[in-house]
Amino acid sequence: MTTLADHINAVELIDHHVHGFWTGDGDQVRFHNALNEADTEPLAEPDAVFDSQLGFAVRTHCAPVLGLPAHSAPQDYWERRNRMGEAEVTEKLLRRCGVTDWIVDTGFADGVAGPDEVARASGGRAHEVVRLEQVAEQAAAASGSYGQAFTEILSARAEHAVGTKSILAYRGGFEGDLSEPNAHEVAEAAARWRDEGGKRLTDRTLLRFGLHQGLRLGKPLQIHVGFGDRDLDLHRANPLLLLDFLRSSGDTPITLLHCYPFEREAGYLAQAFDNVFVDVGLSVNHLGARSPSVIARLLELAPFRKILYSSDAFGPAELHFLGARLWRIGMTRVLTGFVESGEWSRRDAVRVVDLIAHRNARRIYPQLN
Amino acid sequence: MTTLADHINAVELIDHHVHGFWTGDGDQVRFHNALNEADTEPLAEPDAVFDSQLGFAVRTHCAPVLGLPAHSAPQDYWERRNRMGEAEVTEKLLRRCGVTDWIVDTGFADGVAGPDEVARASGGRAHEVVRLEQVAEQAAAASGSYGQAFTEILSARAEHAVGTKSILAYRGGFEGDLSEPNAHEVAEAAARWRDEGGKRLTDRTLLRFGLHQGLRLGKPLQIHVGFGDRDLDLHRANPLLLLDFLRSSGDTPITLLHCYPFEREAGYLAQAFDNVFVDVGLSVNHLGARSPSVIARLLELAPFRKILYSSDAFGPAELHFLGARLWRIGMTRVLTGFVESGEWSRRDAVRVVDLIAHRNARRIYPQLN
Amino acid sequence: MTTLADHINAVELIDHHVHGFWTGDGDQVRFHNALNEADTEPLAEPDAVFDSQLGFAVRTHCAPVLGLPAHSAPQDYWERRNRMGEAEVTEKLLRRCGVTDWIVDTGFADGVAGPDEVARASGGRAHEVVRLEQVAEQAAAASGSYGQAFTEILSARAEHAVGTKSILAYRGGFEGDLSEPNAHEVAEAAARWRDEGGKRLTDRTLLRFGLHQGLRLGKPLQIHVGFGDRDLDLHRANPLLLLDFLRSSGDTPITLLHCYPFEREAGYLAQAFDNVFVDVGLSVNHLGARSPSVIARLLELAPFRKILYSSDAFGPAELHFLGARLWRIGMTRVLTGFVESGEWSRRDAVRVVDLIAHRNARRIYPQLN
Repeated sequence: MTTLADHINAVELIDHHVHGFWTGDGDQVRFHNALNEADTEPLAEPDAVFDSQLGFAVRTHCAPVLGLPAHSAPQDYWERRNRMGEAEVTEKLLRRCGVTDWIVDTGFADGVAGPDEVARASGGRAHEVVRLEQVAEQAAAASGSYGQAFTEILSARAEHAVGTKSILAYRGGFEGDLSEPNAHEVAEAAARWRDEGGKRLTDRTLLRFGLHQGLRLGKPLQIHVGFGDRDLDLHRANPLLLLDFLRSSGDTPITLLHCYPFEREAGYLAQAFDNVFVDVGLSVNHLGARSPSVIARLLELAPFRKILYSSDAFGPAELHFLGARLWRIGMTRVLTGFVESGEWSRRDAVRVVDLIAHRNARRIYPQLN
Repeated sequence: MTTLADHINAVELIDHHVHGFWTGDGDQVRFHNALNEADTEPLAEPDAVFDSQLGFAVRTHCAPVLGLPAHSAPQDYWERRNRMGEAEVTEKLLRRCGVTDWIVDTGFADGVAGPDEVARASGGRAHEVVRLEQVAEQAAAASGSYGQAFTEILSARAEHAVGTKSILAYRGGFEGDLSEPNAHEVAEAAARWRDEGGKRLTDRTLLRFGLHQGLRLGKPLQIHVGFGDRDLDLHRANPLLLLDFLRSSGDTPITLLHCYPFEREAGYLAQAFDNVFVDVGLSVNHLGARSPSVIARLLELAPFRKILYSSDAFGPAELHFLGARLWRIGMTRVLTGFVESGEWSRRDAVRVVDLIAHRNARRIYPQLN
Repeated sequence: MTTLADHINAVELIDHHVHGFWTGDGDQVRFHNALNEADTEPLAEPDAVFDSQLGFAVRTHCAPVLGLPAHSAPQDYWERRNRMGEAEVTEKLLRRCGVTDWIVDTGFADGVAGPDEVARASGGRAHEVVRLEQVAEQAAAASGSYGQAFTEILSARAEHAVGTKSILAYRGGFEGDLSEPNAHEVAEAAARWRDEGGKRLTDRTLLRFGLHQGLRLGKPLQIHVGFGDRDLDLHRANPLLLLDFLRSSGDTPITLLHCYPFEREAGYLAQAFDNVFVDVGLSVNHLGARSPSVIARLLELAPFRKILYSSDAFGPAELHFLGARLWRIGMTRVLTGFVESGEWSRRDAVRVVDLIAHRNARRIYPQLN
């Protein structure tokens, strides 16, 4: 009989929200800055980034993959990965994720791989989600009706994509009216925005328009929630501020991404709405040794068919790898606790693992099959 | 010497906020929907409700009471309870709660038992709390002065009731002015509401009036806080938004119910105000295997004489039973940890159990004696 | 080889935010009220204050220092400390803290020791932080330009001080504009305040002016965040409301104090801003047996070079002692868990202990050396 730990260790994952890995070699500063999510400035003491839960997790779990002892010094780790080169580091780490499918957010992709390269390097399948704010910028650059251009571009891009993604959290947050604007309001706002140059969408009317176009498409709509870099107002990225929007969102699956420190609020929404799903990607990586706590908190109100796996990795393949590794460790810790206390059966625990690892994603992203 | 676990297992409980159990048989859909608190629509995949902490807890703890193995399949569980019939299921489960007194919220009671039936079926005593918003609707239907009708109805109903209850959280939440309106404002608002038909109170002036009438009565005022169904705006049910109201609330005991995910904020308020009390009823049931975490978080700032027990059960008697069962398990886990680490003495732990189980409730609801 | 627990038990601490201990004997009511942080009224049942995590911690950890058995009864504890007298109790407890340096907030010091007395009684060194709102009140009382008086007083007082402190949380909280006002606005607001008597600063313009003068000084600026007494609106003391202020705060170290229940939000800010630091002083004392949980939560997003130790003790020396004692217990529990699970190396754990215990504070308060 396979133990629960063995099952979790081997289960195939669908990473339902991820970005590309770096396609070219880079310097130590690039590597260091990629290990801090929230800061947007050059780090004051660059080596300090390793004095964090994520830094410790890199040394504990990635060092052995690169042939170094666990807990190797930061400088030794850097020298080894630098000597190997980005391509070899990436391949070594990606092949050990146990991920069969990657759903890649292509909305911001400077210097990182696209879905095809992700598939090739990992030996898995890759799919795309289309970022709605990027579609908006493409529509602003097109001629004629903004609204028509938006729907045409979205429809064309979505043909091969499995879902959409919104970064409204970075464009003013969730507070205020998120209802669908009418055609006249959209045209006016678009004219204003085009006059101003049509770069970096922050106009609320057009952001709302994009969200509702995403809903209409019917494919899962991913929404960045909570924790990110300091350009966002974290208190305005509280998923409870989405309540009115969710109440009128119909049947389109909506996936709340990351969610820290609002993962319990997000779990509530996953219980409250048939079409709401939730993950704690990104958070798991940055919490390292503490990630079992956020995994456990997500297993409070969120029904088990509403929880997904993602890494939200971007750049160094350490993040793709740790997403999976730390999830396996955290799930093992938390579910073993439930089973050993007699609250869950081992068989139920195995089934919940499968739901979160891949079955839920396969159900809501039917194109994956 | 009784162990701490034995003591917790046997301690008599006062369930200070509960609703009636179902008085008649019903179908599987009714049962499924009763296991999801937050969703207000028919569940998309009805059997999915069992893939939740509460669903697992039903199979783990209730199945053996109905003569099935722990962790029985959802369908087997349903068939057994359906064959037994609601009355037998209810009696089996209620008799195993170890509850001596039930304080029943009669404000919404479609299809569920009243206090007398609860007493009869459980073999315990039952008492009533009067819902202030229901009194308001009765006053709207009366003739003459609304204010006078309200106080007369409240006074008459409260004669045999041990406290009052407010669901302001469901009627706009806690944000904004909660001071007492004057008689003129009340009369104006009442006239307006009566003109509109006098159904489902959402007028802030009259809601405020009701709250302050509840305070004046001097009996404990229960307030729904936090987690509930999606009709409420959860971020507007944060108990910190009650601060101004609490500052002017005098000596009347105020009990903050449920509180998830704001149980730490509620604990703070219980420390900050002599007259504030707190529980995590409802939350314990829905957290199942994770309920020790919310019990532990409540044991942070809340003084131990300010914590109460409740189940907030409504409908299936599984909820009445699990409230007690999971509380006993969670308290055992958390307090045993405190004692084993040397932080608490066993004797103190036993005393805290008694305070929360019944002594605090008996102190603030003197009519129970 | 020293074990991790031995290392934590012996590590020298810098208590970077503390107040004086009582300089004279007092009655039992004074002692009881000092054990409840949040309530500002005479406690309804004075002995009830011992039925709290802090009350249990006093009996568990302080009783043996005074020669009583652990878990002694509250009345026995009071009688022993009363017979000993404040001076002896203080010295016994302070000498067991393992604190080498105390950074004393002198902004409110009725009946408590100043830095010199703290140094003498503890056998350590003591330093001062200047409370900006107190400087404002001194400037209001001075003649001539308020702005000039403020900068002169601050500059004079800061010559021997190692930092500044703001209690904006108690003066309206963090919501709204916190940008620097111009000289004209300051002069107008100051004239208005002086006309009103110049007591207890609540004028937002002058509060903002003070904060920015603190930044300009360049020495660490301590900000009260979260948990305190009920005079503050806890939801307006959420550190996320400081985001705009932090974005424009430059290089001056800013230390977020206490932070409960927003310690995860504060940890995020410590990751997001090079100049932001964080502690959970005060919270640790009041959480007692549950303090490992808040220490663990702080070790989520906050980089390990951004975390500080403080007790925030005020009055009874039990608080100075428990701050250190409970921190050592909590750190041992949490870090041992990380090491035993293989996530951290023992060597890294020891280094993180040193960073939080004293190395981080020594780096940002260079005058300590």
